[in-house]
Amino acid sequence: MKVLIVYAHQSSGSFNAAAKDVAVEVLTAQGCAVEVSDLYAMKFKATATAEDITGEVKNAENFRYAEETKLAWEEGKLSADITEEQRKVTEADLLIFQFPMYWSSVPAIMKGWFDRVLTLGFAYLQEKPYSHGFKDKKAVLSFTTGYHESTFSANGINGDMNVTLWPLQNGILHYCGFQVLAPQIFWAPAHVPTEACNTMLEAWRKRLPGLPEEEPLAFTPLDYFDLEKGFQLKPEVHEKHATKEFGLTVGTHLGKPLPPNNQMKLVL
Amino acid sequence: MKVLIVYAHQSSGSFNAAAKDVAVEVLTAQGCAVEVSDLYAMKFKATATAEDITGEVKNAENFRYAEETKLAWEEGKLSADITEEQRKVTEADLLIFQFPMYWSSVPAIMKGWFDRVLTLGFAYLQEKPYSHGFKDKKAVLSFTTGYHESTFSANGINGDMNVTLWPLQNGILHYCGFQVLAPQIFWAPAHVPTEACNTMLEAWRKRLPGLPEEEPLAFTPLDYFDLEKGFQLKPEVHEKHATKEFGLTVGTHLGKPLPPNNQMKLVL
Repeated sequence: MKVLIVYAHQSSGSFNAAAKDVAVEVLTAQGCAVEVSDLYAMKFKATATAEDITGEVKNAENFRYAEETKLAWEEGKLSADITEEQRKVTEADLLIFQFPMYWSSVPAIMKGWFDRVLTLGFAYLQEKPYSHGFKDKKAVLSFTTGYHESTFSANGINGDMNVTLWPLQNGILHYCGFQVLAPQIFWAPAHVPTEACNTMLEAWRKRLPGLPEEEPLAFTPLDYFDLEKGFQLKPEVHEKHATKEFGLTVGTHLGKPLPPNNQMKLVL
Repeated sequence: MKVLIVYAHQSSGSFNAAAKDVAVEVLTAQGCAVEVSDLYAMKFKATATAEDITGEVKNAENFRYAEETKLAWEEGKLSADITEEQRKVTEADLLIFQFPMYWSSVPAIMKGWFDRVLTLGFAYLQEKPYSHGFKDKKAVLSFTTGYHESTFSANGINGDMNVTLWPLQNGILHYCGFQVLAPQIFWAPAHVPTEACNTMLEAWRKRLPGLPEEEPLAFTPLDYFDLEKGFQLKPEVHEKHATKEFGLTVGTHLGKPLPPNNQMKLVL
């Protein structure tokens, strides 16, 4: 079992560093081969530019990043740092993204990892959304927040965390075909006593041994959509769900209430 | 009237460049002073690091970006590129963010602009969420997508675009106090005929003169929340909305169906 931890914090003294260290320790102890991409330490390039392609680009005047990097990927002309991260992804069975939530999302350096490493062709195909790529791999977001859990609820000032997670978990991870595990959320470690921080780390330590075998979160099954044309829910699915109380997921909610904890908890 | 366009595309031949150029042209013609931050051309630094502070940081061993940059902002020690962007924000009455949607969000270089320019103290205060900062300024997201509009719906494969927009529009713009205008969405310009692209640009051209006077999207009024403690909806608001059909916003949905087009269209 190979694990890749993509880690984004500037300081080895941080809570995020501790969460990363616990993951390395526990997973290594049970025999996993663990690699860490420490993005700040690597000075990972965040911006998607023509320099990501070695040699000439196909169309410099109307440079299109996705198309150019697809071609470069096919021809082995992606820059060395992208190629190395793609090797790690290819080899990994489980990916852990460890980061402090910045502005309801990942820090720019990790967004840059998504933008640059998950290239067209390697990670996705537009005409085959949510199915190309990484169906045998699992991925999990593990992150700290700046506010307490209650503020990220359907009646809290920051709104439902399930909504905040949808673009990351559905739009990136599920889109690439990853099996998305329930996120590990460390609520406001900077605003709670040390013992509460330790308790959160212990919960992570307890979860980690079983992580590789966890069942993923539920997304709308792909065959519910018309994949030949329009990518809309099939009429018979609509009909079948007409009387149901909740929508299918946060995003494909069908105008119904969101299924509770759809992006946060596994419902068996 | 001063306008700041924060623009993120690598190529001057792109649809995004054309959308930016139309905005500069139309707004300048009606007397606005328009500045453009062309992030790729500026080689804007995307990653949040200790180098964003000139001189010594307060706590190098346990470096905390938000706290360190707040102090640096107070003491005039932020790096020159951040200070210059903050000057532009301070002077602007209207901000336009022009970008291609990457992975359900902004490209990393623009995420880096949010992470680095909107510093604690300057743009927000944790204890005063959604109210500090920029209440007299308007902001609008103007972006291209890679898929057609129908796929970004409550029964489309990519899910409701209102959900995708929530973390950006609520979690960043509204959080800093900006009045958020309805987004300008250019659906899949790479996948439609040239005439359809031109039609989209013309619609933008027609909208732009009125943009500075547009009414913002509706978010939950701040005084609906208990701002002294917990940041939860007040019980009387809950009661008042118990019989309503829809939630208040995408995020504060109260377990009800999302108010249709809450993050995309102004409902008067």
